[in-house]
Amino acid sequence: MQVPAGKLLQNINQPSDLKQLSEDDLEQVCQELRQYIIDVVSVNGGHFAASLGVVELTVALHYILNTPYDQLVWDVGHQAYGHKILTGRRDVFHTNRVYHGISGFPKRSESEYDTFGVGHSSTSISAALGMAVASHYKGETDRQHVAVIGDGAMTGGMAFEALNHAGIESSNLLVILNDNCMSIDPNVGALKEYLADITTSKSYNRFRDDIAYVLNKLSSVGPDAFKYAKKIEKSIKGTILKQSNFFEALKFRYFGPIDGHDVKHLAKVLRDLRDIPGPKLLHCVTVKGKGYALAEKDQTKWHAPGLFDKITGEIKKTYYEKPQPPKYQDVFGHTIIELAEQNPKIMGITPAMPSGSSMNLMMKAMPNRAFDVGIAEQHAVTFSAGLATQGMVPFCNIYSSFMQRAYDQVIHDVAIQKLNVVFCLDRAGLVGADGGTHHGAYDLAFMRCIPNLTVSSPMNEEELRNLMYTAQLENAGPFVIRYPRGSGVMVDWKRPFKEIPVGKGRKICDGEEIAILTIGPIGNEAAKAITQLNAEGFYPAHYDIRFVKPLDETLLHEVFQKYSKVITIEDGCIEGGMGTAILEFMADNNYSARIVRLGIPDHVIEHGEQPELWAECGFDAAGIVHQVKAMDVKPSAHIIAS
Amino acid sequence: MQVPAGKLLQNINQPSDLKQLSEDDLEQVCQELRQYIIDVVSVNGGHFAASLGVVELTVALHYILNTPYDQLVWDVGHQAYGHKILTGRRDVFHTNRVYHGISGFPKRSESEYDTFGVGHSSTSISAALGMAVASHYKGETDRQHVAVIGDGAMTGGMAFEALNHAGIESSNLLVILNDNCMSIDPNVGALKEYLADITTSKSYNRFRDDIAYVLNKLSSVGPDAFKYAKKIEKSIKGTILKQSNFFEALKFRYFGPIDGHDVKHLAKVLRDLRDIPGPKLLHCVTVKGKGYALAEKDQTKWHAPGLFDKITGEIKKTYYEKPQPPKYQDVFGHTIIELAEQNPKIMGITPAMPSGSSMNLMMKAMPNRAFDVGIAEQHAVTFSAGLATQGMVPFCNIYSSFMQRAYDQVIHDVAIQKLNVVFCLDRAGLVGADGGTHHGAYDLAFMRCIPNLTVSSPMNEEELRNLMYTAQLENAGPFVIRYPRGSGVMVDWKRPFKEIPVGKGRKICDGEEIAILTIGPIGNEAAKAITQLNAEGFYPAHYDIRFVKPLDETLLHEVFQKYSKVITIEDGCIEGGMGTAILEFMADNNYSARIVRLGIPDHVIEHGEQPELWAECGFDAAGIVHQVKAMDVKPSAHIIAS
Repeated sequence: MQVPAGKLLQNINQPSDLKQLSEDDLEQVCQELRQYIIDVVSVNGGHFAASLGVVELTVALHYILNTPYDQLVWDVGHQAYGHKILTGRRDVFHTNRVYHGISGFPKRSESEYDTFGVGHSSTSISAALGMAVASHYKGETDRQHVAVIGDGAMTGGMAFEALNHAGIESSNLLVILNDNCMSIDPNVGALKEYLADITTSKSYNRFRDDIAYVLNKLSSVGPDAFKYAKKIEKSIKGTILKQSNFFEALKFRYFGPIDGHDVKHLAKVLRDLRDIPGPKLLHCVTVKGKGYALAEKDQTKWHAPGLFDKITGEIKKTYYEKPQPPKYQDVFGHTIIELAEQNPKIMGITPAMPSGSSMNLMMKAMPNRAFDVGIAEQHAVTFSAGLATQGMVPFCNIYSSFMQRAYDQVIHDVAIQKLNVVFCLDRAGLVGADGGTHHGAYDLAFMRCIPNLTVSSPMNEEELRNLMYTAQLENAGPFVIRYPRGSGVMVDWKRPFKEIPVGKGRKICDGEEIAILTIGPIGNEAAKAITQLNAEGFYPAHYDIRFVKPLDETLLHEVFQKYSKVITIEDGCIEGGMGTAILEFMADNNYSARIVRLGIPDHVIEHGEQPELWAECGFDAAGIVHQVKAMDVKPSAHIIAS
Repeated sequence: MQVPAGKLLQNINQPSDLKQLSEDDLEQVCQELRQYIIDVVSVNGGHFAASLGVVELTVALHYILNTPYDQLVWDVGHQAYGHKILTGRRDVFHTNRVYHGISGFPKRSESEYDTFGVGHSSTSISAALGMAVASHYKGETDRQHVAVIGDGAMTGGMAFEALNHAGIESSNLLVILNDNCMSIDPNVGALKEYLADITTSKSYNRFRDDIAYVLNKLSSVGPDAFKYAKKIEKSIKGTILKQSNFFEALKFRYFGPIDGHDVKHLAKVLRDLRDIPGPKLLHCVTVKGKGYALAEKDQTKWHAPGLFDKITGEIKKTYYEKPQPPKYQDVFGHTIIELAEQNPKIMGITPAMPSGSSMNLMMKAMPNRAFDVGIAEQHAVTFSAGLATQGMVPFCNIYSSFMQRAYDQVIHDVAIQKLNVVFCLDRAGLVGADGGTHHGAYDLAFMRCIPNLTVSSPMNEEELRNLMYTAQLENAGPFVIRYPRGSGVMVDWKRPFKEIPVGKGRKICDGEEIAILTIGPIGNEAAKAITQLNAEGFYPAHYDIRFVKPLDETLLHEVFQKYSKVITIEDGCIEGGMGTAILEFMADNNYSARIVRLGIPDHVIEHGEQPELWAECGFDAAGIVHQVKAMDVKPSAHIIAS
């Protein structure tokens, strides 16, 4: 739903329009931009609090910089709505995150103002440095390169790698640290505490002022005091001022902290910084959710609240008469506590996704056994490995696409050593509105090739519980459990635990001529398709493969001995995934059958609702029905009279 | 070859023997340990300079700590030879890195003193923190946990992630920063410069001393001066001492820098630190190669020099009468310069492997176009992506197994955006003596499932050159070229460049009944096998697949139309690799043929010479001959009379 923009904003079609306003107009622009974000997001959904927090910064940046010649990289991109609105996308902003609408993240193919596609955290400094070094090489000395990165994203290791490199390059780079003490959940870690230190009254800057004052006083005491005061001053200037700041230790010039909501001051500072060459960091203190009181108060809840009444702040929920199946993440969250109550070895680890993974439940219930380690997937995995060496059973919960960040650690620190770490990969498969950067498309392919791993996916909530139960048993070894974003299919999901034999799939139903093999909850789409097919006289068998590694060879022998046509279905990439594992089994056992693999095709799937994307990929119920029929399966003689 | 150990060392079978010596004996132990390392490595090969640099630290640690109850994690592990010798492996140390001998790295399955398997950089703090947190949870308050990490490894992002987490945990963790200014090549980056700052006379500690002295003096000047001096002291203690150090900013207690070659002082400091709870960092300054003058002087050369005459320092080389084929890395190193001379857009990026990748050639020839970014694979990839957005063509050279560290960046920052980054994966396939942690086994599987990538491997040097040439052409898109450790097969390799059509394989020879499909230089083993088979009357066809993605469908149609038996051979994991890609083609095109895939089996292959490991995996020439015969191929009628 499109809503009207304020009277200044409605005339800003690109940053050059903004630049024609006087500095005195900027506060008004900010107010209108903030209101527009509230108006549109409240009725269309999307990320919310992050963009409100950088309204002034966004306006100041586009007012001072010569974008897109000057290059602006937004880390993660949750906060870039204001940027999108100011750079030609105001009138399509209501299509944000909608199928075929604009992306929720900056994206190069969408606008020349989006210099770098983002979504995952902590990439901005590396990317902006690359741009800056290229400009330097080309002799574009006037060109500015700015990375805007949150204090949460700053905990990701690659941000540090980039700082370490940037500090010794002379190219023109400004890092703006958007310090709001938050990731999606409150930020954690030593760096966050450090940043809090330097923004409080004991800060470095205050210290500088204090010392200057005292030295001044001291100098007037007498010639000896004056001499010593000078010595102290020299020593401080020569050493401490060079080293006394985390970022200055990394050879960045540090500026700040400054108030990130004073747009005129921001504009002045950015103008000044333009003329300072080399790597520099501006520490900007902002409030996530700024200007919307409820969001300021509960920043995690308002990170991406869904639709809401912008006046009352009531978040709209669909009410159902009957109880609904839970989200998979909540099944995880409740189940790990149940298991941990029985097994004192269990620990929980999340890299900055307590609320997204529902690990927050365990963090609350068992604070000494559940850890949010910050945006730090690599560390999360190897920290888990360290715990496992001591006989603990860590459940390391990482979104599938973020697990790509810790691939080496899974191989090198867990799998090679056969440590009993349980990886729960939430958001596996097509995730919906977050789109291409966030789809958990590749995990089955990239996990399945690693020795010593067990790789599984449950078809429903009960199976998730039982896989979790199985994974924490003695000597289970490294164990991957993948499950999707969203809700399951069972209302009555909290059933007693049952061990699942590792590597055993299960038959859902027998059939004729054709077998459908599925892995994970997409099996429920297959079940729907089969119900429909049955009504038309087709009787595909259905098997839930459950383990991509090890495969259930007994089950597969049965399949290939009984059925001449096979469809494999997975909510994961077609190349190298479950269907491919089945092809390997066939080749190794000399089976030939007509086999079609359904899954995510070999290109990047954009954003949309999950069912829209399943349909696009051809593995929703309708697509499966279509595929069965396309394989010349003959309707059975014993067709049910309709 | 086993050599005698010194008279103290020969009685140290485990750390408890060491502990029985007096502190005055420690220097003698160090001398003997150093000599033993020189004696053994000079005749057996292996890593050298790193272990010499930590002899005193190793002795002090095992003297003071109660290992293995106290837990010691060596980062990377190049430096752990002394540790191995002191912990029960003195008499098998000569089997280091030899097939079926001990591993060149700490390894849990080898010794209870090896608390964590290592090989890749920057994992130690995460692992040790996991151990420390587990101990804390179990109430083992007396237990020590120590990570020894070099200043090179400290630039890896996950080390920072771990520091950020460890800083807020109260468990018992000591990080020892082994600061020798080196990775394999000289360390680079801002942190290195910072560490140099604080170990020079301008250091933080010197500053502390100076200030204390001046304040003391000042206090005696008079009551006003005294008052101000106290104010300054208070201000410094309250603020600067908390913040003035990089590691203290991350909430570690910082100690040092101390001389890492004074074993008695080290012992004293370690004893003192034992009683200080919480996270702490000891900054130890050492010299890589210490005690072997030549190694101290050229630390990169002596990182792993091969065999040498320990008296003269002459490094033993095999001399050949005829010119020999070059190493693949050198073909890369020379070729990138040739290409860069023609194409001003080309840049070179290496994460801390200038000499290992031969990128040092370009760094020397074109210093403004070739970058060593430190141990920072993630940053290396996204920095390359940033360069590519500006029209540059970055060649990002990363060892295959280290590329696992930057998997997400390849997907998220390069492939999704279709940026023209060329990934040269050196050390692909079985690498030999470095063993399980370093084999580039998985790259074909984990790269092949990513959209928009071209994934290739050359069979020889000329092909490598031509693939590099092709990859830098306009709009080539993200392009992977994998090649192995070691030498090629062509003496006359420097031939004019030819473009290779993307996705085109090539036929090496026609044949009868059976076709062998290979990718990469292992194809030369197949060629050897075919020569032998021809002599016995078997005529397999041979195709070089060359591109795993996209596949050469025309070529594959020919194969499956002409041959009923097929063997695929790759120096990479069997699950999900090239052979599997062929299975997908077969299924998608309804071919059936008897097909056997040779490759690295689904378990971790240990260390040994490459040919030993190929044989173990069954894809050396003999294994291939065996496999062809095992498929009931009929000898041809037109057998060559022998």
